[in-house]
Parts: sequence; C-alpha cells; structure tokens
Amino acid sequence: MLTKRKICVVITARPSYSRIKTALIALQKHPNIELQIVLAASALLERYGSAHLIIEQDGFDINAKVFNIIEGENLTSAARTTGIGIVELAPVFERLKPDAVVTIADRFETIATAIAASYMNIPLIHIQGGEVTGNIDEKVRHAITKLADLHLVASPKAKERVIKMGEHETSVYLTGCPSIDIAKELDSEFTNELLEKYQGVGNKIDINKPFLVVLQHPVTTEYESSRNQIEVTLNAVHESGIPTMWFWPNVDAGSDGTSKGIRIFREKHTTSNIFFLKNMEPQDFLMLLKKSACLIGNSSVGIRESAYLGVPVINIGSRQSGRERGDNVKDVAHDEAELKAAIQLQINHGKYESSFIYGDGQAGEKIAQVIAEAPLNFHKQLSY
Amino acid sequence: MLTKRKICVVITARPSYSRIKTALIALQKHPNIELQIVLAASALLERYGSAHLIIEQDGFDINAKVFNIIEGENLTSAARTTGIGIVELAPVFERLKPDAVVTIADRFETIATAIAASYMNIPLIHIQGGEVTGNIDEKVRHAITKLADLHLVASPKAKERVIKMGEHETSVYLTGCPSIDIAKELDSEFTNELLEKYQGVGNKIDINKPFLVVLQHPVTTEYESSRNQIEVTLNAVHESGIPTMWFWPNVDAGSDGTSKGIRIFREKHTTSNIFFLKNMEPQDFLMLLKKSACLIGNSSVGIRESAYLGVPVINIGSRQSGRERGDNVKDVAHDEAELKAAIQLQINHGKYESSFIYGDGQAGEKIAQVIAEAPLNFHKQLSY
Amino acid sequence: MLTKRKICVVITARPSYSRIKTALIALQKHPNIELQIVLAASALLERYGSAHLIIEQDGFDINAKVFNIIEGENLTSAARTTGIGIVELAPVFERLKPDAVVTIADRFETIATAIAASYMNIPLIHIQGGEVTGNIDEKVRHAITKLADLHLVASPKAKERVIKMGEHETSVYLTGCPSIDIAKELDSEFTNELLEKYQGVGNKIDINKPFLVVLQHPVTTEYESSRNQIEVTLNAVHESGIPTMWFWPNVDAGSDGTSKGIRIFREKHTTSNIFFLKNMEPQDFLMLLKKSACLIGNSSVGIRESAYLGVPVINIGSRQSGRERGDNVKDVAHDEAELKAAIQLQINHGKYESSFIYGDGQAGEKIAQVIAEAPLNFHKQLSY
Amino acid sequence: MLTKRKICVVITARPSYSRIKTALIALQKHPNIELQIVLAASALLERYGSAHLIIEQDGFDINAKVFNIIEGENLTSAARTTGIGIVELAPVFERLKPDAVVTIADRFETIATAIAASYMNIPLIHIQGGEVTGNIDEKVRHAITKLADLHLVASPKAKERVIKMGEHETSVYLTGCPSIDIAKELDSEFTNELLEKYQGVGNKIDINKPFLVVLQHPVTTEYESSRNQIEVTLNAVHESGIPTMWFWPNVDAGSDGTSKGIRIFREKHTTSNIFFLKNMEPQDFLMLLKKSACLIGNSSVGIRESAYLGVPVINIGSRQSGRERGDNVKDVAHDEAELKAAIQLQINHGKYESSFIYGDGQAGEKIAQVIAEAPLNFHKQLSY
Repeated sequence: MLTKRKICVVITARPSYSRIKTALIALQKHPNIELQIVLAASALLERYGSAHLIIEQDGFDINAKVFNIIEGENLTSAARTTGIGIVELAPVFERLKPDAVVTIADRFETIATAIAASYMNIPLIHIQGGEVTGNIDEKVRHAITKLADLHLVASPKAKERVIKMGEHETSVYLTGCPSIDIAKELDSEFTNELLEKYQGVGNKIDINKPFLVVLQHPVTTEYESSRNQIEVTLNAVHESGIPTMWFWPNVDAGSDGTSKGIRIFREKHTTSNIFFLKNMEPQDFLMLLKKSACLIGNSSVGIRESAYLGVPVINIGSRQSGRERGDNVKDVAHDEAELKAAIQLQINHGKYESSFIYGDGQAGEKIAQVIAEAPLNFHKQLSY
Repeated sequence: MLTKRKICVVITARPSYSRIKTALIALQKHPNIELQIVLAASALLERYGSAHLIIEQDGFDINAKVFNIIEGENLTSAARTTGIGIVELAPVFERLKPDAVVTIADRFETIATAIAASYMNIPLIHIQGGEVTGNIDEKVRHAITKLADLHLVASPKAKERVIKMGEHETSVYLTGCPSIDIAKELDSEFTNELLEKYQGVGNKIDINKPFLVVLQHPVTTEYESSRNQIEVTLNAVHESGIPTMWFWPNVDAGSDGTSKGIRIFREKHTTSNIFFLKNMEPQDFLMLLKKSACLIGNSSVGIRESAYLGVPVINIGSRQSGRERGDNVKDVAHDEAELKAAIQLQINHGKYESSFIYGDGQAGEKIAQVIAEAPLNFHKQLSY
Repeated sequence: MLTKRKICVVITARPSYSRIKTALIALQKHPNIELQIVLAASALLERYGSAHLIIEQDGFDINAKVFNIIEGENLTSAARTTGIGIVELAPVFERLKPDAVVTIADRFETIATAIAASYMNIPLIHIQGGEVTGNIDEKVRHAITKLADLHLVASPKAKERVIKMGEHETSVYLTGCPSIDIAKELDSEFTNELLEKYQGVGNKIDINKPFLVVLQHPVTTEYESSRNQIEVTLNAVHESGIPTMWFWPNVDAGSDGTSKGIRIFREKHTTSNIFFLKNMEPQDFLMLLKKSACLIGNSSVGIRESAYLGVPVINIGSRQSGRERGDNVKDVAHDEAELKAAIQLQINHGKYESSFIYGDGQAGEKIAQVIAEAPLNFHKQLSY
Repeated sequence: MLTKRKICVVITARPSYSRIKTALIALQKHPNIELQIVLAASALLERYGSAHLIIEQDGFDINAKVFNIIEGENLTSAARTTGIGIVELAPVFERLKPDAVVTIADRFETIATAIAASYMNIPLIHIQGGEVTGNIDEKVRHAITKLADLHLVASPKAKERVIKMGEHETSVYLTGCPSIDIAKELDSEFTNELLEKYQGVGNKIDINKPFLVVLQHPVTTEYESSRNQIEVTLNAVHESGIPTMWFWPNVDAGSDGTSKGIRIFREKHTTSNIFFLKNMEPQDFLMLLKKSACLIGNSSVGIRESAYLGVPVINIGSRQSGRERGDNVKDVAHDEAELKAAIQLQINHGKYESSFIYGDGQAGEKIAQVIAEAPLNFHKQLSY
C-alpha cells in the first residue's frame, strides 16, 4: 500500500491564499496526499484581513498557527519578524514531519519557510519563482529559488529564468497561477447585495455604475516616501470624482506609512466618492474586479488576474517592474497629472481581450499532480 | 571632505576568519574605510576555538557580539540558530548604521547576516560566492548570492557562475581568496617549540618526521551517518600508524555526532599516533599544513590553501564535491580500504607544484579596494 | 573622585512614563548619576501613543529601543512578547553596563526587565511594589518584588506589605508616586485651545462645560468578556448625553477586544457626545482630569492622581481591586444601571478634598536621592 | 462523567527529574489525571546527562521538547535562554491546553514555565517553594511562588514561609519531597557490577571500600570565581587519596568555568583516585550515595536525600545557605584546609541517624492527590 505524501503548505498572508487556493482544493482531494496547512504572520491578524477565518470557512483544517510579527514601523522589525518565523516554524515542521513543504511566491517573511524547511532537509517546493519585479521581493524570490528543490512556475518566461539561474530542467514545472483558476470559474456577477456583507468606512458605491478599484501597497525599499506616494493616488482618485472601492494595504514595513497617509487624508478631505475597506473574499474580489472600470495601484492582481479578465489597469511605480504584462496595463509614475490622464484613458478604452500569460485556469490541478508525483529530494547542485 | 564608508564585517566561525583576515587588515588601513567587526555564533565559543580571542589578539576591535547558537544535536536547532541570528543582528545593524555589510562564504548561519542586511536596505557584499559544493552550503551560498548586491569571488569559474545566475557583470569582482594571502606570506617553519603552545589530548607528535593532518567536519545532509563516517577515518588513520594531528570539527548540526565518534573511539582504542586538538592560529595552522605529508578530511582548506601550498590532500566524501581543485587532491569515498590506499599513494608522491586557482596572494588588498570604491546599492534586478 | 552611578531606567508604555517622569528629571540633574533610558514594547509604537516622541520632546536621550511586541490578539502573544523582551534587553544591559536597573510598576512585560537584570547580577530597583490589585498585574508586581533588590514604594501600606513578603526593611523606601508630583505642579488650566492640538474622532467637546473622561483597559484574566465590558460603559456614557473625552486603551492581550468593541459601537451609534482620542501629554491629561466632572474606567490614575486632585471617580470592575483609595472613588461592577446611577451621583457631588495616600508631590526628588545613595547589591535572602 | 484533569509537568534538567519522578508515577496511575510531560533546556542535551532518555526508559511519553539553551559562557545567555523558554513554551501550552502546569523548584530557567503558564491564565502549581538558599535560585524560587496558584512544599518551615509571603493557607500543601520517596524505596545495594554500565574517565573505584562522592555546581552570582572554587575541592580530594566518584556539574552560566577547572586540573595532575562521570540514573545515584563514606559539594542532594539516608555531608560555600539541614551536614567555606579537616571528621564519624525534615517517603502520592483534587484557579490576591 502506498503511503500518502504529507504536504505542508505555509500561508503567511491574505493575498497568498488566492495564489494557492485552487491547489489546496486539488491537494485535499488527491488520494495520495495528506494536506497540512500552517498559517503564520499577517494571515492570522484581524487588521490584515483575518485570512485564517476565510480559510477555515472554505473547509480547510489548520494544523498550526505561528504568530511571528514583531510590531514596529520599520525595516528592522521586518527582518526580525522573519527571524522569529524561522525559530517558530522549525519546531512545527519537526512535529508535523512533512514529506515536503510548500512556500508561496515572494513576500519577505516567506524566506522563513524556505530556510526552516531546507535546513531541516525537507524537500522545498516553491510556487511562482522566476518572475521579475522591483523591491525586496525580487531578492527574496530568487533566494528562495536557490533554496528550493522543486519549482512550480506561472509563466513560460519564469520557467526559462529559473533554469537559467542554474536549476535543473527536470525540477521546473510550468503550471500557471492558481489565481487565474478562480478568475476562470467566476460564474456570477458582483452585486450591490453582495457588497452589503462588507463593512468599511465612507459611502458605499453603486456597483452598477462605472467604478474604480484601488489597491496600493507600500514599497519597502522606498519606505520613507510611501506616505507621499499614497497621497498622490488619493488626490488623483479624489479629484476624479469617480466612485471608488479602496482596499487597505497588507502588512509590510511601511504599512503604517501608507495607512497613516490614508487616515490623514480622510481627516482633511471629504472623500465622498471613496469607500474604504479592509478585505474581501478572493472570489468576491475578482467578481468586483471583473466588473470594475479600472484597477489602480501596484498589486500583482493587476498584472495577473486582470490579464485574464481583460480589466483595464493602471500600474503605479516600481513594485511590479519587470513582470510580464498584457496590453491591459498602463504604467505610470507616482505623478498626479500622469495618473489622472491614465484614468481618463483607461475609462475611455473599456475592457481588453483576455490574455493567458499567467495560465489557462488549470493551475490548481496541475500543481497538485506535480506535488503528488514528482520525485522529492533535498539535495541539489548548480546545473553549471 | 569625504565621509568614510562604514563597512561592517560579520564573522560567525573560526575558519571564516582565515577567509577574511588579510582583507580586514587592508580595510583597517584604508583611509576611506571605517571598519566595524561583529562576531556571532561559534566565533564566540570556547568549544569551537574561541575565535574572538584570536581576532582581538590580532589587533581588531569588536563592535558587537551576538550569541545565537541554540544548543541541540539536530537540524531544527541549526535552523533556529539562524532565526535568532537575524533577530539579533538586525538591531546591531540599526545601531552601527553601516554603509555596507560583508558576509563570508556559505556556512548555514551566514544567511542570517544576508537577510538582516538586505531586508534593512543595507548594501550586502558577499565574499566567495559562485563556488559549487555538496551539502546545505550549496543552497546557502547561492541564496546569499541572490540577496547580495556586490560579489567578490575567488576564482574565474566562480565569477562566471555568479554572472550566469543573473547578477550584473558590473557587480562581480574577481579578487581571489584571502586565505591564499596568508599561505603566500608564511615566512617561517612550524617547529616542535611552536607546538608547545597548543594543548590537546594524546601524544604530541614530532613535527620533523612525516605526519598527517586530519580535519573532517560533519556533513549536515547526511546527519545520521556522521558518526559512521568519522569512524572510517579514525580506523584508517589509527591503523596507518603514521603520526597525526587531528583537529576537532567546527559547529554544525551533527557536530556532536562527529565529536562523539571521536570520543568513543578514544575510549576503545589507544590512539597513540594521534594528537587531538581544538584549534590553532590560522598562520600556525598553515605552517603546519605546509610541513605535513598529507591533509585528510573534507575541509575546504584542502581545496584552497593546499592548492597554493602544493600539499597532498585526500578529500573524503561529498562535502567539497563540485569545487575546483588542483592536481594535489585525491578524492575518496567514506571507505576504509580506499582511504588507506590513498594515504599510501599521497605519502609516496610527496609535494605538488603550486596552483593559483584560488588567487595569487593579493586578495585582501583587492577586496579592500573594491569595497572602498565600488558603487553601493541595495536595489537590483535579474539580468535576464 | 567619585564615579557616577549608571542608572538604567526601562520604560515600556506611555502610562509608565507618567509614573517616573519627575524622577527622571531629578536623576538627570543629580551630580552622581549617569542616566540611561531604554524604551521597549508599546512605548515605541504609534498606535499606543508614541511615548518615545513625548519622552524625546521632554529632553531625554534614549540609549536603546527594544521592539518586542509579538502581534496577536491573545494571551500567548503576551507571554511571548515578554520572552522576546528578555532576549533583547539582556544584550542591551550587557552593552550599557548599568550599576542598577529600574523597572516601573507591574505591567506584564516589565518582568522581562526584572529577569534580565537580576539574572545578569545587576542590582534591580522596583518602583511601586507592594500594592494590591486584581488581574495578572497582581502576580507580576509581587514576583518583581521577589526579584528586586531595592524597593521604592508609593504608600505606607505598600511599604508594610513589601516587608511582610520577606524583604529586608533596609531595602524598602517610601517615596510616594511621581505621578502625584506632576499633579501638584499643575499651574495652568486646560482650555479649548489646548484641545486643538489633539486629533481624534467624533465631535470635540467644550471644555468649559461639565464633561466626563473615560479610560477603560481590558482585564487580561477576563479576556473574552472585554468586549462586553466596554459595551456596558459605552452604552451608559452614550445614553448619559454628557460630553465625554474617551481615551483608547493601552496594549494588553485583549486590547483589540476592547478596541473592536469601540469601533463597532461607533458604527452602530451616532456617539455625538463622545470625542475619542489616543493619547495626551501627561501634564495636559492631568489638567484635563482636574477640570473634569468625573473620571470613569479602571485606570490607576483614578486611584492615584485623582485622589490628590479630588476628582470624582467611578472605578469599574476588578482591575483596581485591593488598591487603597480615597473618598473620591465610587466602585461599580460592569453593570449599566449601576454605572448610570454612579455617574449621576458623582456629577451631583462635585470635587472632593485632596488626599495624600500616594504621596505629597516630592516623589521624583526622593527617588533620585535613594537611587544615588542607597547601597546597591544583587544578593539577598528572605528575611525569615 | 468526570473529565480528566490535564496536568502538564515541565522538566528542565536531570536533577529536577529526581525531584518529581515518584509524583509522575502517581499522576500517571491516577484515574482522574491525564499526564503531559514537556522537556526543555538541559534535560534534552547529551552533555548534561540526556535526561530525556532516562525519562523515556522509565516509561513516560514526552509530549513536547523545547530546545531553548543559548550557548555562551555568560549570564547574558542564561537570561536569554529563559526568554527563549517563554517564547517556546507558550505555543506548547496553547497546543496541549493543560488544566494546570507544574513547575519544579528553582533553577533559573524554570521561571519561563511559570511566566508562560500564568500569563496564559493556566493555573500554576509550584513544587518546593518556600525554601531558603543563596544564589539567584533564591530570587527565582520566591518569584515563582508569587506567580503560582498552588504550592506543594517539602518541609514545615517552607510551608510557613510561603504563607508568610502572602499566599493563602488553603493554597499551600505540605507533601514532602519526592526525592525522599526514592531514597526510601532503595531495595538493593550499589555494586561494582552496577558501576560497569557507567562510562567516565579516570580509574574506576572499588565500591566496597570507603569512597567519597563529589557533586559541586558553579554558583552563578560568583561566576568568576567558580574555577578557583572547583580547584580548592579538587586539590583537597586529590590529596586525600581516598577513592572518589566525581560528577560533572549541570548547566548554569559558569558551567564551563567549573568544567574547565576540572579539565585543566586533570591535565596537570594524575588524579588516580578520582573517577569522573557525567550522570547516573537517579536510583543508582542514591544507592551509591547511601553506600558512600561522605558526600562533598554544594548539591541540594546533600541537604535532602542525605538527611533521610544519614550520609555524612560536607556542604561547601553559599549555594545551600539558608536551607534547613540535618545533623549529618558539616558546612565549610571554599578553603582547602577547612575542607581537608572536614573530610577527616566525617570519615571518622560514619553514618548518621535518619532525619525526616524533607518528607517521610510518601511525597509522590500526596502530590498526585493534591493535583487531582485541589481547586484550580488562576486568580489570586495577596492575603494581607
């Protein structure tokens, strides 16, 4: 009789869950897999959207919760949060004894998962390596590639890059991104009724008229200017007068710089066209996005899901620089005039055609299959 | 007026000091550099050779000491030691405010230095990237390359590999390895008088007759077999009857497996031809090596300094697999018969010609010059 | 020549600063003292009132900042925050080499200061031991007494209790509480102009008409009910219609239970008579308190400063149970009807006479004198 | 139906196991108790006697292992080890959800257990409070008393002291010390055959002729002199020429000072009358002690079990100062002449009569009964 592979997936933030959800469903169903889920960092905190509650509602059991965020509005705390992550994840892995550990994408704290697993001789599977961006994420992503034993990438170029970096071809699999799976399966429309279940501040918008969605995260290597940057966007959106759904940023050093910018702006201005909210279930968010006239900000959702959905996007600043993008993306600097012009342009253009750069909507199934069948090792050597 | 560059070098173990010592001397003398030295991990502990005392005797000031080793004979403790390293180094960097941080080579705990610095937006300089070996070191080394902004490599092939991994050519400098500088400058001979100052257990050997040097570290990914492996070497060396200087291994998960193997062997056998000792000043060690008939083990000193010195070397097992080596190295498996044959072969051969694969003896000066003059950034992107 | 005593005061929260401020001023002026200030925990965080900025504005230099709060809405995080506090404070003490360490009162994280100092053989001075309350503070306070070498207490009964617990009489000094010093020195009145500099949410009140002040912290041992408890107070105050200044609670496990209660209440009700704010400079707060018609909540300021100021106080629940109090305090349970009745009663009564239970306003000077002159030891034994 | 009480016992060192073993047996048998055992600190390390192996051999299941010792020969590391202990024990308690936590005696790291449990609102049971000694243990012991909810003490005077410190009489139970239970049950004699199973260095002694047992720990508050102190004892015992069983000290800051003293002494002298060993199973050790002519050192076993066994004891220095002792104990300073005279005196005297100060041999049963039946609370207040 076959022993099931114990696969431990570590999720550290709300957006990472969207990048793995359909793979979790497929892993949970797979006859040869015993799924273990570990939540850590901001995935456990209310002020970052209580991802743990969403994940439990979706029917997943949580095997361990790791609280590792050191509070402090600075980069030192980001580094120390990562250190505590390693200290805490190692005994969790020792207890759960997984046959492989899965780490997702490139948030700063995910390197804790990668180090704990690889140092403990547990095969490490990395989802979504090989992409190129600005920011500390860029360093983190490629460093994790060098710690990982198996690479499940989202685009052909990403596959090419991982191999170029010295990983053996047999260890790199092109699966696409699970977030596209969710975008593909959207079967109903976002409605005003649906909006009722979300709390926030400001005036709720009418979802049946054209509206903007804003999702702008702080950029860690530009820490001090994160407050200025958010103000540029606030001004432009405020003055556009277009109804807007504005999402608070996730946790990062500088998060509070951005958050503070928003808070102070709201004290000084009557932002009557903007509804601010913290979080939305992934599927609801994508339905909202699909219906929106334009997405503004620097989230990777503008690069990935929006490509598949054909949503017009204005990508601001350096955070996504280097990432492959479809025709639907208009890049601008943190410049108010440029941003206003781009809003006008995208509103006028309307929907774009779908692009399949980041997958065709089968990523979850493909990922589960690779994880169930690929050889698992924890030894490797540069291919050249 | 020029502000001096504050350069913070983090040293985490006795052998790492030999890999940086001549660079420290050159940095200390350089008019545009303010040198900061941070000691961490086993560099501070008596049972790993009290590197801190040696470094202070050499005239360097220590700016901070970071105790981060979690005791425990397992890989979990190695991971957690690394986590504590990040937690502790981050506030040290915050206090010292260096313009760049230097991390040396590829020991597991050095990634703590790399993460703390890169996450805090401090330019990271990596010494001796681009080499290829077996073991967790292999993953650590390349992961640090992806976190580092400036690469000071020891060999032409290493330079080529770092560039291939996606680092920009302008950020990679070929300097050679500082350990070769020390080998080059050896101006006197090791004598029995010199041996007097070192304490150890067993019979002291006569340095003027042919003798072996053994330096064998545990291999973390083969943790459980480290005790068996050391026994193979102990048997072969014991039965050879050749006078031997045997050095205890440095800290690693498994260290105690190896150490225990030695202790138990000594209880069962009268190892009258072996003198066991913990540590030797780097220069003394090289003089000893230069005079030895053969070096046995898996230390990188067999690959590097020994190449320059032309010392016959028997390299055991996978730890140095993939590293460029000179003609002086004979590779063997953990096999007693094979090892005995190799001892005979190398004793019969005698000294080899010098090879300059790892540098011509100017590495310290070259490193200091690059560190003083190269542009310092903390932003980068994959070159392809 | 006399060497100055190096005295290291560790401050971990905004309210603790009020309990030590006048002593810091006196220590700074004292010719035989070299004052060191270490800030930790919530004293460094914006969402708990940025005590560090206030302290710097008051002219004190900060020798070290220790970020040790592990985010998480639970008691486990409170314990782990304390653990990280020890881990981080120990190297700070090693670097600063104080002749004695001062820890203030009884917040949960202050035991980290006590353990780090006493384990490192540094004489430990405890401010405000010997009092009796409910809550985990009660355990923490007396445990610190048993770790401390010198006890500077605020009331005669506190002195008696510390000695009864087995401390030697010669190590216990009655100094009073520095917070009373500030209350004594108030020389001007709180005005609407002064209120301008404080930001908050809700309608600002007119300071010249009767108003309430609310300051209610979560009670850790009653964690789950903290949200219900705050709602009782919110209802009663809301329905009273009396203009109210409401201060957010400080950090504690459960803080977010209380905070959440406030946020949700505000979403459901138009709390037009309440102005919510985060923080106020200690002196401003006392002027506000002096002018207020009644203080409501469970803060120790209602027991101490209010006694001296003669302000009517309604003390809710168990948090201050056991603490000596003046006639100005009316105790109530978390019961809406009882609370409403007490508000009516205290409003009708008006100001009380001053009581000197917690000091006569000279505490800062007395504390500095004891710290400068008392023998410093780190050895002690139970007195019986 | 009755739910079993989940009782979690945390053991942090080899000697603590002897202080709880018979209680563990009784708890394991008790129908209303579900026993949980957590091992931490030196209880898990080979160089401190691998207590975990002994405990498993005795038939106990280990629910969690916590590695928290930060290596470093200094007091800072002792403090930080305690901090890591809290950080790691808190999630273990969260996972095991015990109804009460048991902490044993007064080793420095045990306060980590006390803080984690009390901060998490878990009733804390303290074994062996109320005693008086020198050293940091004194502070730790009484601080734990103030954190604990239930006190199970070993002697009538201890009970009296705990109550005097302000604990309520109903929470203090006199049970005696479980180590006496083991001493009572000794049913066979230590033999040379038994000695065979223990490894060590030096010449094995003949157990049938008069011999000494030495067990001397470093005293943390006299850190620097620990090496001198051990040399005094080594000299006296060496020169006595009497066959001696010498046990290595347990972990403490300064451990390596003591250990180093022993190692260096052995290099300089032929200590032919001394057999050095690391550990012995508790029962074997007591049989050895029972047969010995005299116990020398500063271990509490000289005060407790030896009282019951009537073994002559020479207690050196301040470590046990203040502890109640029987007539069998002769106290001396760290003075060679004094020590030599005392050896002579005790050898001449021979066995003493049994004393029951620390219990009559029923402690394990009594402890289990109290733990199973006493009311469990986590609220308390000073009794005066």
